[in-house]
Amino acid sequence: MAAKLKSVGVSLVVAVALLFLQTSTVLAAEGSGNKYDSFIQKLLQAGLQSNTAHLLLSELVVRAPHRLSGSSDAQKAVALTARMMDSLGFQEVHAESVRVPHWVRGKHESAVIVQGGKDRERPVAICALGGSVATPEKGITAEVIEVRSFDELARMKDAAKGKIVFFNRPMDPTRLHTFEAYGGAVDQRVEGAVKAADAGGVASLVRSMTLAHDRVPHTGVMSYRDSVVKIPAAAISTNDADTLSRLLKRNPHLKVRLVLEGRTMPDAPSANVAGQITGVEMPDEVVVVGGHLDCWDKGQGVHDDASGCMQAIEALRLLKELGVKPRRTIRAVMFMNEENGNRGGKGYAIAPQRSREHHVAALESDRGGFSPLGLAVQGDSTLVAYVQRWLPFFAQLGTGRIEKGSGGVDISPIVATGVPGFGLIVDDFRYFDYHHSDNDTLDKVHPRELEMGAIVEALLCYLIAEEGLPPNTVHETSDQ
Amino acid sequence: MAAKLKSVGVSLVVAVALLFLQTSTVLAAEGSGNKYDSFIQKLLQAGLQSNTAHLLLSELVVRAPHRLSGSSDAQKAVALTARMMDSLGFQEVHAESVRVPHWVRGKHESAVIVQGGKDRERPVAICALGGSVATPEKGITAEVIEVRSFDELARMKDAAKGKIVFFNRPMDPTRLHTFEAYGGAVDQRVEGAVKAADAGGVASLVRSMTLAHDRVPHTGVMSYRDSVVKIPAAAISTNDADTLSRLLKRNPHLKVRLVLEGRTMPDAPSANVAGQITGVEMPDEVVVVGGHLDCWDKGQGVHDDASGCMQAIEALRLLKELGVKPRRTIRAVMFMNEENGNRGGKGYAIAPQRSREHHVAALESDRGGFSPLGLAVQGDSTLVAYVQRWLPFFAQLGTGRIEKGSGGVDISPIVATGVPGFGLIVDDFRYFDYHHSDNDTLDKVHPRELEMGAIVEALLCYLIAEEGLPPNTVHETSDQ
Repeated sequence: MAAKLKSVGVSLVVAVALLFLQTSTVLAAEGSGNKYDSFIQKLLQAGLQSNTAHLLLSELVVRAPHRLSGSSDAQKAVALTARMMDSLGFQEVHAESVRVPHWVRGKHESAVIVQGGKDRERPVAICALGGSVATPEKGITAEVIEVRSFDELARMKDAAKGKIVFFNRPMDPTRLHTFEAYGGAVDQRVEGAVKAADAGGVASLVRSMTLAHDRVPHTGVMSYRDSVVKIPAAAISTNDADTLSRLLKRNPHLKVRLVLEGRTMPDAPSANVAGQITGVEMPDEVVVVGGHLDCWDKGQGVHDDASGCMQAIEALRLLKELGVKPRRTIRAVMFMNEENGNRGGKGYAIAPQRSREHHVAALESDRGGFSPLGLAVQGDSTLVAYVQRWLPFFAQLGTGRIEKGSGGVDISPIVATGVPGFGLIVDDFRYFDYHHSDNDTLDKVHPRELEMGAIVEALLCYLIAEEGLPPNTVHETSDQ
Repeated sequence: MAAKLKSVGVSLVVAVALLFLQTSTVLAAEGSGNKYDSFIQKLLQAGLQSNTAHLLLSELVVRAPHRLSGSSDAQKAVALTARMMDSLGFQEVHAESVRVPHWVRGKHESAVIVQGGKDRERPVAICALGGSVATPEKGITAEVIEVRSFDELARMKDAAKGKIVFFNRPMDPTRLHTFEAYGGAVDQRVEGAVKAADAGGVASLVRSMTLAHDRVPHTGVMSYRDSVVKIPAAAISTNDADTLSRLLKRNPHLKVRLVLEGRTMPDAPSANVAGQITGVEMPDEVVVVGGHLDCWDKGQGVHDDASGCMQAIEALRLLKELGVKPRRTIRAVMFMNEENGNRGGKGYAIAPQRSREHHVAALESDRGGFSPLGLAVQGDSTLVAYVQRWLPFFAQLGTGRIEKGSGGVDISPIVATGVPGFGLIVDDFRYFDYHHSDNDTLDKVHPRELEMGAIVEALLCYLIAEEGLPPNTVHETSDQ
């Protein structure tokens, strides 16, 4: 567009939400609209002037890029975020120990398509799934059977015996919400090795969980079952999956040689890290905001989920910058081990300290550091309706959606005890392009988009700390 | 996040909009909700399966990257988009001639900060503003006076005499909407040369219109006034603007040598390009959807506005793929010369063909090919309310905002005649990082985000073509 400003008018969302405010009989923020309106403007000013979330993010992911649970970078991140919160003047900064699974990727992993002699070997981009056992040193060389579902595999009976089972059902690109497309395909990654072994397969090769077409494999958690033999499992890039599928149609007897070296070590000591602004009236009533500090060992785990961690810290930093003395405690928590065990989330919920506290709400950002669009509320309909009366406030931040939905994996154990859960809804079109892969790097985050998430979190934490929430009658089961 | 799907619940926006539908007495889509619901799902399927908008975009911007009005690439783009629409089976594909301004950037343009001898020359990244006159061949070397506003310049009286006036008021980063930040700063670029010359300045140097901090200058339109001497005008990158400002504080007598070679040629022949799906019941009633084909000569003009053009073509292609036979005509128009004259938009509104047609609506996408968030409706409150009853449909596409606002520059002349205008509202956080600069390239567009805009446009065009719109009583004045 040219010089003229394309002005934005009054949003219907705001208008409708104001209608709610006018007609609703019970108002948490009754008569205090002006107080929050000016607070929101100050939050925007403070946040967008400095984009500090991005500065914090850079520090974390440059110094500790590969924060897989049990790794030295994960431990570096624990110390670093504790120092960060300390130097920002947070109160009660401390680590809470948890023991975490410790899987280590091998130095060498590779796969080639073998057709005829050595000169016809064609390398494909793969990576071990998290938790996979190794292949023998020389790899596994076997024919490949391609399937699109567990049902298809089951119908084949013995056809998979001795073969590498290649799960090649793509994420459905026609789903508007990428998380739904992910949810419709990720069973192949999580359960593929068990299903393949059950059918007599010798390894599992799964199409990467992404909508992108490139040569970057995406790792992620997979599981074994004690009663089923553990076979190696890897992800293959989408471009290579397409190539392999095409070649298989021409030559169903081609082979793939897969070499993986990953191994599982004994559980390792690690920790959640917390810091807070202690409430001046009800210090034992706690609003938790967090993300997970661990990530996969590909890329820098920036969108998943260094972003969520730094947004939590930035939310508290902003509140401090604005001189907020909240009635209830607002606590930032960096959870450990979301990716392969959720030991941090579980540990936080049952830590001895919790018995002396009452949690009012738990908020998580774990859908990437993109433009925030709204809030998912995990609770009963009374709670959702209560929070929706704050729509006029959030609409001022461009986040005009408040809807029932899931909070996040880390907070799910504490939400399962009846604590209202909240998840930041973001523009997720690009998320799975980067997720669990070498593409999840700092340059993929836009400072303003990241900061806006922190601003929205700061507002929600403050509103809850000031106004409280109605009791939640729905005790949802834990995600793990 | 890990394997578990974070589900998204029922949106309040949808719920509220459904409430509207239930309680409203006049419904355009009354009883036809199911028809459109299944249509919307088919649109999503067809669009997101192929992301064809991005394929079309690649073809346009790779073959004709520098489509400044009057350039050979602009003429290539006219022919190319006509062929494109022809090969997609659009009807009545034709060009409508318009004469356009023809400004040509010089081969060489540069600026250096001069302090003392030759060895202390420091190059800075600049580019001529569109329409600027050239400097003498050896450039203009003069002292620099920095100001933040025209008022400040006016107060200085003679201090600017013989100097280069350096307008260095940044876009306000604390504005949530980047277009508002742009609107608050762009007067410096558009009117800076006139104001500087008025104050006796010898050239105008303006801080680039962007929130990014980098070394990439952003061009854009500027204007002269016949009664005021025409002085050269350039944009300087934000990083270099900061540097220059810092150096000026240390040494107010430093000089800048500015070399520009641009020149204005006689007006050139060019054209708007149109193609359509002719309405089966009311062929002379027309819904126009478009963008502008011209762009600045930096980057590839991808977000501004090849995206809008290709979305318009893709919207019609989708409707054709779905076998739609609309009651009214739906026409895609590639407007020429939005950036420096809007001759295309003006020409379209007064072309002889218009007298045989009745325009029902005009829709434009010119805020970048990013995730669509909603629709701006340029018309009276009856019209806005009428369109808002379609919210449940648009909410299914994630575009839950329908609000009063501006359509776009290209359609402003026809909107000024009383035709309802519509503008696609998108996530604009990144727009001005790229706008009018070498950064506005194909890699900055995400195929799904672009496609979603085309899908939203297809839906709006179809709804209007089927249901019509109430008459608009507001005849807004043209933007140009």
